[in-house]
Amino acid sequence: MQIELTREYIAKLQEAIARENRNEVQQLIDELHSADIAELYTTLGEEEGKLLFAVMDNEKAADVLIELDIDDRKRVLRNLSSDMIARQLIDNMDTDDAADVLGELANDLKEEVLSQMVDIEHAGDIVDLLAFDEDSAGGLMAKELIKVNENWNVVTSIREMRKQAEDVDEVYFVYVVDNSNMLKGMLSLKKLLLSSRNSQISDLVNTDIISVRTDTSSEEVTNIMRKYDLVALPVVDQLGRLAGRITIDDVVDVIKEEAEKDYQLIAGISEDIEPTDKVWILTRARLPWLLVGLTGGILVSQVIGLFEADLGIYPEMAFFMPLIAASAGNVGVQSSSIVVQGLANQTIQLSQTFKRILKEFSVAMMNGLTLAGIMLAYNILVKSSLALTLTVSAALFSVILFASLFGTLVPLLLDRFKIDPALATGPFITTSNDLMGLMIYFSIGRIFYGFL
Amino acid sequence: MQIELTREYIAKLQEAIARENRNEVQQLIDELHSADIAELYTTLGEEEGKLLFAVMDNEKAADVLIELDIDDRKRVLRNLSSDMIARQLIDNMDTDDAADVLGELANDLKEEVLSQMVDIEHAGDIVDLLAFDEDSAGGLMAKELIKVNENWNVVTSIREMRKQAEDVDEVYFVYVVDNSNMLKGMLSLKKLLLSSRNSQISDLVNTDIISVRTDTSSEEVTNIMRKYDLVALPVVDQLGRLAGRITIDDVVDVIKEEAEKDYQLIAGISEDIEPTDKVWILTRARLPWLLVGLTGGILVSQVIGLFEADLGIYPEMAFFMPLIAASAGNVGVQSSSIVVQGLANQTIQLSQTFKRILKEFSVAMMNGLTLAGIMLAYNILVKSSLALTLTVSAALFSVILFASLFGTLVPLLLDRFKIDPALATGPFITTSNDLMGLMIYFSIGRIFYGFL
Repeated sequence: MQIELTREYIAKLQEAIARENRNEVQQLIDELHSADIAELYTTLGEEEGKLLFAVMDNEKAADVLIELDIDDRKRVLRNLSSDMIARQLIDNMDTDDAADVLGELANDLKEEVLSQMVDIEHAGDIVDLLAFDEDSAGGLMAKELIKVNENWNVVTSIREMRKQAEDVDEVYFVYVVDNSNMLKGMLSLKKLLLSSRNSQISDLVNTDIISVRTDTSSEEVTNIMRKYDLVALPVVDQLGRLAGRITIDDVVDVIKEEAEKDYQLIAGISEDIEPTDKVWILTRARLPWLLVGLTGGILVSQVIGLFEADLGIYPEMAFFMPLIAASAGNVGVQSSSIVVQGLANQTIQLSQTFKRILKEFSVAMMNGLTLAGIMLAYNILVKSSLALTLTVSAALFSVILFASLFGTLVPLLLDRFKIDPALATGPFITTSNDLMGLMIYFSIGRIFYGFL
Repeated sequence: MQIELTREYIAKLQEAIARENRNEVQQLIDELHSADIAELYTTLGEEEGKLLFAVMDNEKAADVLIELDIDDRKRVLRNLSSDMIARQLIDNMDTDDAADVLGELANDLKEEVLSQMVDIEHAGDIVDLLAFDEDSAGGLMAKELIKVNENWNVVTSIREMRKQAEDVDEVYFVYVVDNSNMLKGMLSLKKLLLSSRNSQISDLVNTDIISVRTDTSSEEVTNIMRKYDLVALPVVDQLGRLAGRITIDDVVDVIKEEAEKDYQLIAGISEDIEPTDKVWILTRARLPWLLVGLTGGILVSQVIGLFEADLGIYPEMAFFMPLIAASAGNVGVQSSSIVVQGLANQTIQLSQTFKRILKEFSVAMMNGLTLAGIMLAYNILVKSSLALTLTVSAALFSVILFASLFGTLVPLLLDRFKIDPALATGPFITTSNDLMGLMIYFSIGRIFYGFL
């Protein structure tokens, strides 16, 4: 049930916790969804949170633990013995969640927890999953699934499914394999339900399905599930044997996280933060890119220092420095962000680098001519000197061309060297474009002021 | 099946189209998923695309049409009579897709298409959906669903479901209603499949479910489905009667679109564009924010003009102008982006405005002190004048405080006035902070240079 987590509700809960009234606490959270309890947990102190976990049964506690963010999860696990982690929590989780939680633990604690698990088969599945890169289909998938043999009929299948279904929360599809566990296709429950009981599975199976391999990247998995509107995606090993399945709810989180990561990089934030995080964490996430900007600013000050004499004679040159720098920054961020999004959505193929640059160059020409034209009109209107008028428009045009190409090329290069291209958005690109932009501006200024 | 859309493949298809060899074209696209055909369509010219649509059967054409982006879809529909749109395409679509496509048409064409539809009941459902705001649960939902009465048993339910199931592609859940169509709960197909045939639905139904109303905003719908990991979400009317259902694949697109919109706003891009769009569209999307930046730059030049005399005497003041402006811009973008993401994820409540500002102020103090300290050390090291040294550090500190507060307040204010807070990220915030930052810098400079 959905309950609004009002301030009054939270106050009431905290009061019950303060009085250590376990029954009341239990009653208060009894109707809540695990996601709501996790949200509640973030508003509580460490000691309050301990009591919250103490009143939940194991299954609920496991569900809530998965919903917490990594810092809070570590805080909870710190207070528990490896034995409790294994039997109360991990044993009650699906294999994919269990592997995620264990993957966050230090190596020796992880081993200890695994060795204390009661369900050996479950532990084995988790160990299998831990071997995969967390950014691959193997790292996303769960082992819990329902599969039937293509040689069975509907009655046999339903009988076998009853046994398998205990481990699986929700079933949307049944996977069909042959005798050597090779994936043959999928069968919707709808079809199974509406078919005659004697039908052969091989007559009902849909063999025209999409699957991925365990080593497919999680980015490609999300693109495939999104593009083909899939709710579940089977994962096979190198030989084509069914290894696990990925469901859309896991992928929704990946999509959201990737979008947030790109957004934070363009905003100049270096870690995944929430507005509710502590001041120290918020500061730490923001300082690195501010320092990059500051370093750039110091370099810029030295570039301008080279032109100090010119500035003494023509202080008007300083008027348009921020305009040049800001335009360079804005154009650079636009260009790099288009490339970054194109790469993420796979609408840019690397083979088209040259075409991409040509197009970017055309767009830059049009924007550059427009802006340079406007500044030409403006400077004539306000009766600036001829040298300044020409310098500003010529520099603006060159700077826009340069910033576009730089903003397009850098993320493409980073991507080619397998570095996250989103690093080239935000403060990095604005800072380097500031620097180059002002160098171009003063160099062009020297030419015009020298000649005129 | 997944087929790599290679350059060779596309060349082969274009050649077949050029020769108007319909059989070959049909063979080439026969195995393709509708999403792949839609991708293919974007690489073709208008005449080529026409032939592509001409060889597909109605159902396939309808599927492909939905996958196209809005511009391409309009291009396809332009060539078709209202009669063809109604009977070949709309009649073959799910109600939610049909309503989306019809909603894009001009009013009189929409009426005409609706009047030509063969399946009157289907047309009625679509008209119902068209009445809802497209950014609401009613606008997202489809009418196709499978429902059973709580008073039925499993055998009756399966019989009734067989009739309903013809209209529905995939079934993950069965909705349970009472005699007046009030939503009572949901039933997973797994449960239905594994239960004895004589069980009563009321004994199997899960009544502890989450539903939304037709007027719930699509943003809240996505937040709910993501938070509670839902694959399907029932929608009810004001009285609690079952009105439709939303599935996760529709919501995945909403999540992705909203993330892209925010990303493009912070990057200074004003329309939803793809790298594959035409040069003119790319230019049009980028020019508005560049003009905002340019206007800001002109205002900045006038502010600096006020201090022309100072600059003539102390040209060194110009050295750190870009550093001040860039820091103001970077801090402003960081602050506003945190607020925008917090509002989108509902981790910021509007009631906490004051708390948010206080926290932001603390973070700004720490970052400001750090950066000002570094610049103090730097200027002492390079033996800058005392006045410049003090001006730069004092101004940097003030500018960071100011930019943080401004970056936090503006999106919060926009949100309160129901304007998209993401407008306050990117070029808008950097431009205003440039302006304010340099005003602060020169004002502080005048004080220190005057006194020392």
